[in-house]
Amino acid sequence: MSNKPCIPKGTRDFSPIEMARRNYIFDTIKNVYKKYGFQQIETPAMENLKSLVGSGGDESDKLIFKILNSGDYLSKADEKALTYKNSTGLTRSIAEKALRYDLTVPFARYVVQNQNDIIFPFRRFQIQPVWRADRPQKGRYREFYQCDADIIGSDSLLNEVDLIKIIDDVFSELFSDENGKQKLNYTVSINNRKILAGIAEAIGAADKLIDITVAIDKLDKIGVDKVLEELATKKISEEAVLKLKPLFQLSGNFEAKINFLNNFLSTSEIGKKGIEELKTVFNYTNSLGVRTANLELDITLARGLGYYTGTIIEVKIENFPSITGGGRYDDLTGKFGLKDVSGVGISFGADRIYDVLLDHDLYPEFKGDSTQVLFINFGETEEDYCLPLLFKLRDVNINSEIYPSAAKMKKQMTFANNKGIKYVILVGSNEMESGKLTVKNMESGEQENLTIEELITKIK
Amino acid sequence: MSNKPCIPKGTRDFSPIEMARRNYIFDTIKNVYKKYGFQQIETPAMENLKSLVGSGGDESDKLIFKILNSGDYLSKADEKALTYKNSTGLTRSIAEKALRYDLTVPFARYVVQNQNDIIFPFRRFQIQPVWRADRPQKGRYREFYQCDADIIGSDSLLNEVDLIKIIDDVFSELFSDENGKQKLNYTVSINNRKILAGIAEAIGAADKLIDITVAIDKLDKIGVDKVLEELATKKISEEAVLKLKPLFQLSGNFEAKINFLNNFLSTSEIGKKGIEELKTVFNYTNSLGVRTANLELDITLARGLGYYTGTIIEVKIENFPSITGGGRYDDLTGKFGLKDVSGVGISFGADRIYDVLLDHDLYPEFKGDSTQVLFINFGETEEDYCLPLLFKLRDVNINSEIYPSAAKMKKQMTFANNKGIKYVILVGSNEMESGKLTVKNMESGEQENLTIEELITKIK
Repeated sequence: MSNKPCIPKGTRDFSPIEMARRNYIFDTIKNVYKKYGFQQIETPAMENLKSLVGSGGDESDKLIFKILNSGDYLSKADEKALTYKNSTGLTRSIAEKALRYDLTVPFARYVVQNQNDIIFPFRRFQIQPVWRADRPQKGRYREFYQCDADIIGSDSLLNEVDLIKIIDDVFSELFSDENGKQKLNYTVSINNRKILAGIAEAIGAADKLIDITVAIDKLDKIGVDKVLEELATKKISEEAVLKLKPLFQLSGNFEAKINFLNNFLSTSEIGKKGIEELKTVFNYTNSLGVRTANLELDITLARGLGYYTGTIIEVKIENFPSITGGGRYDDLTGKFGLKDVSGVGISFGADRIYDVLLDHDLYPEFKGDSTQVLFINFGETEEDYCLPLLFKLRDVNINSEIYPSAAKMKKQMTFANNKGIKYVILVGSNEMESGKLTVKNMESGEQENLTIEELITKIK
Repeated sequence: MSNKPCIPKGTRDFSPIEMARRNYIFDTIKNVYKKYGFQQIETPAMENLKSLVGSGGDESDKLIFKILNSGDYLSKADEKALTYKNSTGLTRSIAEKALRYDLTVPFARYVVQNQNDIIFPFRRFQIQPVWRADRPQKGRYREFYQCDADIIGSDSLLNEVDLIKIIDDVFSELFSDENGKQKLNYTVSINNRKILAGIAEAIGAADKLIDITVAIDKLDKIGVDKVLEELATKKISEEAVLKLKPLFQLSGNFEAKINFLNNFLSTSEIGKKGIEELKTVFNYTNSLGVRTANLELDITLARGLGYYTGTIIEVKIENFPSITGGGRYDDLTGKFGLKDVSGVGISFGADRIYDVLLDHDLYPEFKGDSTQVLFINFGETEEDYCLPLLFKLRDVNINSEIYPSAAKMKKQMTFANNKGIKYVILVGSNEMESGKLTVKNMESGEQENLTIEELITKIK
């Protein structure tokens, strides 16, 4: 059998240079998470389908990749669904398992399942791929990585502050050059779901909170006028919609916005609670200071329908969708039978960050990660001489190789060049006699004669 | 909806301590791979089903997890299979994608798909999970990690030598204590498929090579007598089976075994080629030396049906199944239309190695990986005083936290204790006045008064 090889649409292979870049992003995030006391966990790629469905609505359920049961799965299939060729109806009876769709639901499941062993408040991070049967398009994939950190079992707003400082640490590192100079601006937008609830109350449409949230969430895409139009179609009175308008034009600094909200939400208890929380988070963060982040109170930030109940956070750069986001939730684990556990979390979108760093040429060089030294292979005698030297380099952790056969010199040099190997070692009879290797620097073109010890000193 | 949370059988969650141990194994292997010039790639979890099936026989195909097509998958389902409830027949029409079953087939697919960009000989490593619908049992999981390294596009036996040296490096590190003293013995068994082919020829049963390989492969499980019995049922003459017998009783050192084979295989060209290859690999390896490995020529090593054509390698420790294995193949990429590409590879079984290290208490301590310092929270005033100090520690990469609320002292100390945090900082009015923090070492119980700078010096 011969297949023309290809991979499923929306998925990707990662070549060595792409892996080096991705690991750079993951390692940066991971090290910052650890600095803040977060501990890593991993959960299986597949969960029971019933654990996953029903968390994000019907539309989300459609995006879940289901795994066909093994063996004679039709023997237990739903007869009726089979007869009427009802795909949706059949699925549950032939697919018990599915690929995780995010890291949040598996985490909630993990917390409930391991609640007796977990030390609360639990700071966990998790960096793993997730899968969504989304329509693939530029920057949107069917397999992509999420880098989540959550603190669960504490309602202290200090946790929010830590997450904002984490964002500041990560992007201060990723968006700066090797001298620490910032090369790219980004904004950390902060809001609170209680503000949104307060707004709905204040305009006399508390029962329309979901419609209002959904509409406001589209602001970036469709603009103020269309948002107001959409709200008008949701049986929200003209008067209420008119009251909303000034919210979209709100400008000024943090204090100015808080003053406006104090006034606007003066009749809403939940709204006032939201203001208090925002003030606490901003005050702590400002007194500790940030390195490079622009903090902004954005009262039109909604972050989808999600499960958020308090602070919400989103990171944006110009001309790009959100690269990081998160917020506080009060009932993540309720679905699995553990009520009233408050938590707060963020998720770095590694794949988008990858594109941003590439677009802005922000990756460091990864030379040391790959092979540093190649011994050219001139034949058996030279090979016998070179092999122990090769292992001397490896013994001191210098990544090195010998070309595995006495191929033409040009082929071996091209190999070194294409693989980005910095030093090429040439050993002929002169070198074997003197013990001084000819070392060619492939970047500068310079050649030197060095003993193996001198070479080690040079590289280290 | 409330589910009692659980995960699919044969899969596992990994808690923080398990992650630390796993990362230790992965990092050790990864660093050795890099030292030998290997470069990392990753491929998607899902491949097109047609890329995966037919590589390892029908039995293997059954172990592949298939992914149900999205949307109205029944509209394109095979009518006949549906009518006759033929599960196997239906699968292809409702599941185009599947989870990878190993890293070898995706790698072959990757090589063919990217052949114009790859620099050959290509040394790649890949550390990712694979999935098999196997019956779960002790030490066998439905999701587990493989840690593969292959060199493709070179038939030089120097590559085999590198792989053996890699095995030696990895287990010298994993199986030794912090002083480098070896704590666990292991054997690297080496054979060559050409020897097995030669044996089949020499006993006059060249056409029964597969039956002979399959039978010999069971030697560890069923013993010599049963193997011979099985061979007798495969239409192999009694005379031929009798000739095989001495092979199973072969003992002595490498030279003794080679002498026996020289004689036994004197009429088989392929057998003689196998002897040559074995001698080359052993000579190189012995002249370079190994650290802790016991090298052994084991002419009963078969390594399943696989795709091997030359050297085969397996690593064993007492009372445990193989923990690492690999070999040379000549036609890995043929399935995808690229013929005659020789390669050689090994795969470390991370999950089994995990168990071995745990059984033999061979993990180092991972304290530094988790939180090192906890500030006890006594209330708002103390919190305000502590927060900038907390960030001073984080700024110099000391993993640290403040307890997020002023909970009871006992609760906070228990938290520190359970999370394995070494230093606990107590700050009250005395400390705020003097600038000297009370630092409690949770391991020794000792208390000291230190400035934040003194604490940093102490920890670093």
